[in-house]
Amino acid sequence: MTSQWEAALEALRNGECVAVLDGEEREGETDLFFPAASLSPASLRLLRTQAGGEMYMSVGHEVASAFGLPYIGNVLALTEVSAKFPVFQYMEKSKGEMCQGSCSVGVSLDHRTTKTGAPDVERSYTCRRLAELFQEVKEMETSVDASQRRFGEEFHTPGHIFLCVENGKGLSVRTGHTELSIALANAAGVTPVMVGCVMLSNDGDDFGALRPAPARAWAASRNIPFLTGSEIVKHVLG
Amino acid sequence: MTSQWEAALEALRNGECVAVLDGEEREGETDLFFPAASLSPASLRLLRTQAGGEMYMSVGHEVASAFGLPYIGNVLALTEVSAKFPVFQYMEKSKGEMCQGSCSVGVSLDHRTTKTGAPDVERSYTCRRLAELFQEVKEMETSVDASQRRFGEEFHTPGHIFLCVENGKGLSVRTGHTELSIALANAAGVTPVMVGCVMLSNDGDDFGALRPAPARAWAASRNIPFLTGSEIVKHVLG
Repeated sequence: MTSQWEAALEALRNGECVAVLDGEEREGETDLFFPAASLSPASLRLLRTQAGGEMYMSVGHEVASAFGLPYIGNVLALTEVSAKFPVFQYMEKSKGEMCQGSCSVGVSLDHRTTKTGAPDVERSYTCRRLAELFQEVKEMETSVDASQRRFGEEFHTPGHIFLCVENGKGLSVRTGHTELSIALANAAGVTPVMVGCVMLSNDGDDFGALRPAPARAWAASRNIPFLTGSEIVKHVLG
Repeated sequence: MTSQWEAALEALRNGECVAVLDGEEREGETDLFFPAASLSPASLRLLRTQAGGEMYMSVGHEVASAFGLPYIGNVLALTEVSAKFPVFQYMEKSKGEMCQGSCSVGVSLDHRTTKTGAPDVERSYTCRRLAELFQEVKEMETSVDASQRRFGEEFHTPGHIFLCVENGKGLSVRTGHTELSIALANAAGVTPVMVGCVMLSNDGDDFGALRPAPARAWAASRNIPFLTGSEIVKHVLG
């Protein structure tokens, strides 16, 4: 019998969906993920209709490094920014276990060829191209400056895709959905760019995240592999 | 017979939804809007299940001014930002009619009391509190610095609510959904903070924005007022 771990890696290699619960003691949220490299408009429609939360793209640390993509928090903390826009002196991200001293949020972007950037066909193209461009510059072994230029030729900011950037030490430092999804991509051998969306409740007066039991049942009913953060950590870190 | 314009203003005063098509020659997208001041978790669920696109909060120019909230493009264009993070030298927003030389996108935020910030109950609270806080500082006629401090005591960045900021000259300069929704709020006499979401197609192989005819039919079937950008401009500017 195939384990959920093996089923998840196989699903990602086939461009299919996996479900990841970070942990009931952490966020307690289940996010669905597709690999960006083969993302279809239909996959994006599934994320927004079946999961429903904010859509984001997690990128591996090596992807952010290749293109020089920062955490937005490090941009807003610059002296000139807080001097010119003092509100940022007061808006520093709250510390807590969800951020663990830093935060994964990067910039937003759209591919320059999109019209508004919002529809499934446009957002899925933006995601696919970012994954493809990373493979292209990786194979060319080009300089970071040349990679940044190519990045800017294709993408502008702000846009409709919000990046979450893996920290440089992966799961050993942070076990958020960003790190968990990139660890899965690396284990599956697919490009470390993943498109995720948190599952929300559509049930009556429960307006929170979808609870772990119904999330697990939903995934089982669709043959979508379901993993918890601790299962992923155990497989990756041993 | 009540006109769509009067029905829209009445809906907003009651905390209900309106639909706005910017124009078939512009984006050709229909966005649903609720007034933020009375936003419920159920309203937010309706936006994400019935509209489906990126959710955002449009704020009037006076709201952004009261709290010193900038366009993110003006932050990323600062010398220190582009010197430290050169990728921004290359990622300048494409010029085009959707941006008309500038862009409406501001910062993202969550209320500090939220856990992850993502679920409907948390996002709706973030939106309501921003609208309430604007009314509070407006009535107190406090200084911009004091307002910014109070803003930072309640909200941190980055977060799950993405702001779109009305330009200072409203509909006379730009007729995007940001300006259209704020013009409606002002006409209805509600706090100029609106929560919007673009309607996307869920129909077969059409992965674009929901077309104007089915958007109009959907609104009619639910008794939701439907206005076009040119109708709003005509009512507001005469």
